[in-house]
Amino acid sequence: MNAAGFAVNDRGCAFGDGLFETLFVHEGRVARLDDHLARLRCGLSRLGLPEPSGDQMLAVLDEAIKTGASDHGTTGVCKLVVTAGSGPRGYRRPEQPALTVTAAYGPLPPVPTEPLALDPVPVIVEGVTALRGLKHLNRLSQVLAQQSLPAGRREGLMLDPAGRVVSGTMGNLFWRERGDWHTPPLVGGAIAGTRRAWWIETLDARVTPCAPGRLALAEAAFLCNAVSAWRPVGWLLGRALPDVDGPPADGLESVAGCWQPPAGAMRPRQNPWPATLSEAMADSCWGRVALAESGAPCEVSCPTPPSPQSIER
Amino acid sequence: MNAAGFAVNDRGCAFGDGLFETLFVHEGRVARLDDHLARLRCGLSRLGLPEPSGDQMLAVLDEAIKTGASDHGTTGVCKLVVTAGSGPRGYRRPEQPALTVTAAYGPLPPVPTEPLALDPVPVIVEGVTALRGLKHLNRLSQVLAQQSLPAGRREGLMLDPAGRVVSGTMGNLFWRERGDWHTPPLVGGAIAGTRRAWWIETLDARVTPCAPGRLALAEAAFLCNAVSAWRPVGWLLGRALPDVDGPPADGLESVAGCWQPPAGAMRPRQNPWPATLSEAMADSCWGRVALAESGAPCEVSCPTPPSPQSIER
Repeated sequence: MNAAGFAVNDRGCAFGDGLFETLFVHEGRVARLDDHLARLRCGLSRLGLPEPSGDQMLAVLDEAIKTGASDHGTTGVCKLVVTAGSGPRGYRRPEQPALTVTAAYGPLPPVPTEPLALDPVPVIVEGVTALRGLKHLNRLSQVLAQQSLPAGRREGLMLDPAGRVVSGTMGNLFWRERGDWHTPPLVGGAIAGTRRAWWIETLDARVTPCAPGRLALAEAAFLCNAVSAWRPVGWLLGRALPDVDGPPADGLESVAGCWQPPAGAMRPRQNPWPATLSEAMADSCWGRVALAESGAPCEVSCPTPPSPQSIER
Repeated sequence: MNAAGFAVNDRGCAFGDGLFETLFVHEGRVARLDDHLARLRCGLSRLGLPEPSGDQMLAVLDEAIKTGASDHGTTGVCKLVVTAGSGPRGYRRPEQPALTVTAAYGPLPPVPTEPLALDPVPVIVEGVTALRGLKHLNRLSQVLAQQSLPAGRREGLMLDPAGRVVSGTMGNLFWRERGDWHTPPLVGGAIAGTRRAWWIETLDARVTPCAPGRLALAEAAFLCNAVSAWRPVGWLLGRALPDVDGPPADGLESVAGCWQPPAGAMRPRQNPWPATLSEAMADSCWGRVALAESGAPCEVSCPTPPSPQSIER
């Protein structure tokens, strides 16, 4: 990984006050950059943070990829982090936050050569309502879930406090049941993934609440994230799933072992930052699915503030 | 604030994988350092992180206070941050995490000159079970709660998803009811505060679940944190509380406007790092209260891991 560090008083480090995107880079181009930019802008809006300029964002990405490519080649992973920037001690942000935008490019992770085995992890995911679906920097649940995995395992099934299926620790779950594809809703704490959105559109998948017992009906299952849009599940709650022959949609290709949507989705880094958030939402697969899943995905989903009944004197 | 920054791949910045302590410093000495060290060690143990050496910790603290004092004087606030250190991309920690220990010293915050007004904020606190009580770096709920406060307000009342009272956004709540003092339990997402523990011992306070309606019975209330052990609440849910004459225990003194427990609790910075976690727990007010509140406060409070029913092949 390259790139500079964070100031000691960066709010990303102090409180996880920020967002990140994990970008798959192939021959120097970012896969589905439009989806990532739409999600990032939606997330910034929901957190009440300003938008960086598109030029700044793309310049940071370009620089990270260019610098890292000399060590790692032009196919790899770029992690983009946007935080609320530096500020004084305390939870409250400065009046005019100056975002920190940083990116680091590195090699692809080791690619699993066999289908995954998925069993529940002992760490319950509790999605904070106001943060639903966001790819924010508060990720201790996922860290503890990864730490809890038995030796040799890379993935596990995360459940919410009601015992419903949420996702894997590093990717979203899809399962096939009587020919239809399903994925859990975001209620339980899952991340509104860019590849999740792509699969929902591509497979016309249903968003279905799911207790683990329902997965006994699964005929096939996979996890998806930006690094690999298809990671087949071979064993689900201890039961072997026979149907792991290949991705359930045409056109995916394995790029350095990571399955990716059709190459047309590889946008040049010069992809313009859309002029408005609503344009970004309408123009991206991620945005269309987000709008379909919620009438107002860009508002903080918490109750209306109470009207103050007394004032501070 | 002084001190160096974080590497771009520090897990504290990437995931909030770490803990912090906010230390009140008076004439170069840290208030109730034993409580803070006990809590920090308990938190590191619960997160599955190694312990830094006591020498390293105290050297970092000393250096931050010494450096900052030239700008800010010898009375102020020191923020100590311990993260899981640098690592590769991905939630899973390196096999042998090398902690990042950093501290920054700065001036005291503006001291409220009037009692606080407390009304519910619109951001629900959802305490992740495995993180209950920890002063971890995943603080987006508190950030959004602060951002939601009406103009001129500094504090609000945080509620959990069941509508129960949790705490203020920056401190724990105590209220007096028919002569007895009460504070909410940690279930809802409150931080196991060092001053909270001190007040529980000092006032023989009860740990009592509390819906907002119950606060109609409050005769007096205050918030507490490390910077000020007593911040009187003058208006609670719109109702004036008359009893704000002074702290409800003898011996507190106002140090630069911040109320602090008796001076005997000011430990020199050379306070030894206790030899063992259990010693740290037994020797500190915080540890005794933590042990009383939970039989096993240093274990990650999540279900036993399921035995793997299949292995990754």
